Amino acid sequence: MSEDKLTGYRGELRSALEKVGAEIGDRLEIAVNNQQYTGSLMPRVESYDDWHIILKLKSGYNIGLAHSDGMKIKKVGVAEKPEFRPPPLPEAEPGLPKVSIISTGGTIASRVDYVTGGVVSAMTSRDLLGIVPELVEIADVDADILYSVFSEDLTHKEWEGMAERVYDKIDAGADGVIITHGTDTMGYSAAALSFALQDLPVPVIFVGSQRSSDRPSSDNATNLMGGVYTAAHAPFAEVVVGLHETTSDTSIAYLRGTKVRKCHTSSRYAFQPVNDWPIARYIDGKVEMINDRYRPRQPSEPRLLNRFSDKVSLVKFHPDFNPTILDWLIDDGVRGIVIEATGLGQVCKDLWPAVDRARKEGVIVGVTSQCIWGRVHLDVYSHGRELVDRGAVPLEDMHPETAYVKLKWCLGQTDDTEEAKRLLLTDLVGEFNPRTPYLEGSR
Amino acid sequence: MSEDKLTGYRGELRSALEKVGAEIGDRLEIAVNNQQYTGSLMPRVESYDDWHIILKLKSGYNIGLAHSDGMKIKKVGVAEKPEFRPPPLPEAEPGLPKVSIISTGGTIASRVDYVTGGVVSAMTSRDLLGIVPELVEIADVDADILYSVFSEDLTHKEWEGMAERVYDKIDAGADGVIITHGTDTMGYSAAALSFALQDLPVPVIFVGSQRSSDRPSSDNATNLMGGVYTAAHAPFAEVVVGLHETTSDTSIAYLRGTKVRKCHTSSRYAFQPVNDWPIARYIDGKVEMINDRYRPRQPSEPRLLNRFSDKVSLVKFHPDFNPTILDWLIDDGVRGIVIEATGLGQVCKDLWPAVDRARKEGVIVGVTSQCIWGRVHLDVYSHGRELVDRGAVPLEDMHPETAYVKLKWCLGQTDDTEEAKRLLLTDLVGEFNPRTPYLEGSR
Repeated sequence: MSEDKLTGYRGELRSALEKVGAEIGDRLEIAVNNQQYTGSLMPRVESYDDWHIILKLKSGYNIGLAHSDGMKIKKVGVAEKPEFRPPPLPEAEPGLPKVSIISTGGTIASRVDYVTGGVVSAMTSRDLLGIVPELVEIADVDADILYSVFSEDLTHKEWEGMAERVYDKIDAGADGVIITHGTDTMGYSAAALSFALQDLPVPVIFVGSQRSSDRPSSDNATNLMGGVYTAAHAPFAEVVVGLHETTSDTSIAYLRGTKVRKCHTSSRYAFQPVNDWPIARYIDGKVEMINDRYRPRQPSEPRLLNRFSDKVSLVKFHPDFNPTILDWLIDDGVRGIVIEATGLGQVCKDLWPAVDRARKEGVIVGVTSQCIWGRVHLDVYSHGRELVDRGAVPLEDMHPETAYVKLKWCLGQTDDTEEAKRLLLTDLVGEFNPRTPYLEGSR
Repeated sequence: MSEDKLTGYRGELRSALEKVGAEIGDRLEIAVNNQQYTGSLMPRVESYDDWHIILKLKSGYNIGLAHSDGMKIKKVGVAEKPEFRPPPLPEAEPGLPKVSIISTGGTIASRVDYVTGGVVSAMTSRDLLGIVPELVEIADVDADILYSVFSEDLTHKEWEGMAERVYDKIDAGADGVIITHGTDTMGYSAAALSFALQDLPVPVIFVGSQRSSDRPSSDNATNLMGGVYTAAHAPFAEVVVGLHETTSDTSIAYLRGTKVRKCHTSSRYAFQPVNDWPIARYIDGKVEMINDRYRPRQPSEPRLLNRFSDKVSLVKFHPDFNPTILDWLIDDGVRGIVIEATGLGQVCKDLWPAVDRARKEGVIVGVTSQCIWGRVHLDVYSHGRELVDRGAVPLEDMHPETAYVKLKWCLGQTDDTEEAKRLLLTDLVGEFNPRTPYLEGSR
């Protein structure tokens, strides 16, 4: 991810390393607290602090040494320069299901190359099998790099590209597809692909990790192995997200792409179902089905519907909300606005004129709730009815992010506002749950 | 809430009632499906459909009769006109703690007056003790109406008014204060009062209900009784929200005002702690303390700091986010923007120029996470560090709504940007939790 010769090192520690001419991969001798350590200087992929040197010892273990005034650093060897030496590639066992892995970036794809010491930002099949050689016993895996970007930089263009690549892999005979992806916007991408790839014959599984592979608590390998097994064998054919289900390493939950969101900044089980149960879980080397509402694996011809409008906005209502924001958006030419209203779908009455204007100008206004869980119901209170009378569209139990992605998709399919509204209100891939579970069901 | 003589009736059913000249409270004889019912016409406070007539029978029970073509409606008596007949007012037992109840509107304050049949929109002490006569055994209660508005219409002006009224009640010797409030924006108001009333001597408890008192599953009375007991006796002195803790009616959780949000559109235990544990719980007629981090009840002089800026905006980042929105806000003269970023606090790089501009023009940009749970950490990835380098302020484990309210408060206290930033980053009333619990701790 970087040309930096001291990737991840900052401040005083960086100066100390520069002083001895150290670069990532160089062999260093470090003396601190009457102890001496020799090893290769590792890059820091995630930097929670800026005072630890990471050394890879001969034993293969990484250690972190806190920088202090008394620390002595000596360079005793030079890094082998980045000529990539592939690990021996294991052969897949014959007759195994075919699983394609598409890499788009993110923490799961960032790994430290222990030969060169450089940070490799995305995985080829070779890289992957180098990290998790067990995969060859699970499936006949092929992997390639589609994108190598931070997930917060992904746009609808990449959603379109991902959908197309998955389509091609299925066309080429994949029994399941894995997309490795940064977790930050994984929920949005999973919703996007749910709409962009319909009538799926096989599972499409987003896999990510919350801790990079150079950290001891990494969920990288577990999530990948579970994902590949599930892609190969699970009886469902939907777009799902699969990361740790709980604090423990023992199970991975597969959550419907339209009913999932990242609900914790750092925990390994950050992904939670919204108004739905998990579809399945990978545990003890098997796939357990949980939800009776799913599309089964089947011999069908997938449809690639990968057009998204970029004229849609997601707006969160709050006390003292400035209604002018909606006017700015309409002036700017948006064709759709999803509002995160309060409670059952209420906003303050100062917003009504802008909603009126939106209708007059053919802009679809969808209403969701910032509660996230539960269903909007604009018929209960008079403020809600005022919104419906002004043409606003209550979006059932879709959470705001999925509603936003769906409206982008609807307006990417058609230029006709009424047809887009009809699509928006039709349950296409399980995005509406007729039986919305309460919190205890969803967490 | 309305001068309407057929409150809550709509469409064909309303026409049918108008045809016989019926008004709320009138005695009607209704024949339907070979059955005949006589009773007073009740208003519809919450209207999940528009085809049921609600009659109050002589027995005291309400029934809903589905309107159909064969239904015959006959008016047989006229409503007593709205001359309010107070129920006998029970006397508080001597020596009980004093609890003041301030009503601001919302579902909990909407009750059907069974004498006139009208909808009473807010509660006086008399109304309240008429509904929950048990309160006189718990505390010496006084109640008055401050506002009578839908909670989605509340602004910082009402936050200022609420804080002042609470301050006055404490000054007049209240041992605890209850604010009844609509649930939709209760989290925002509770955060606002947490900052606006510091050094509290007694608890200030927001109480609401998710189901109005004319529905069988109403949580109205339980939440009030628990709230009054807790206000009178609890050992903490903070601003909290108190509604049902679980699906059961048996316990009420008291959640710190800065660490609470409404997480379900309709469930009775919609309020959940964010990055914190509940402070206390009311169960079996007692208050149990849960969290060891709280401000104890104490003889202190409260400080009234009730000024909020209206030049602050809360903006949710999403894929394809239009950076121009930040420019519009700066052009419009905002002094602060809270961004709901992704994950640990990342946004796409297209936003950086607007963040640069914000700094140049003295606009504070605070960074929170749309994950809601967890802590932002802008130091982990390079995109986060880019934001910090541009002057953006990571707001620890405050969820976006609390961060928004706090920034409004900070900019209401001072015109000096640096001083506002200092306040923003200081833990004032427990809004930063040094030990952010994971999901299992918080739900």
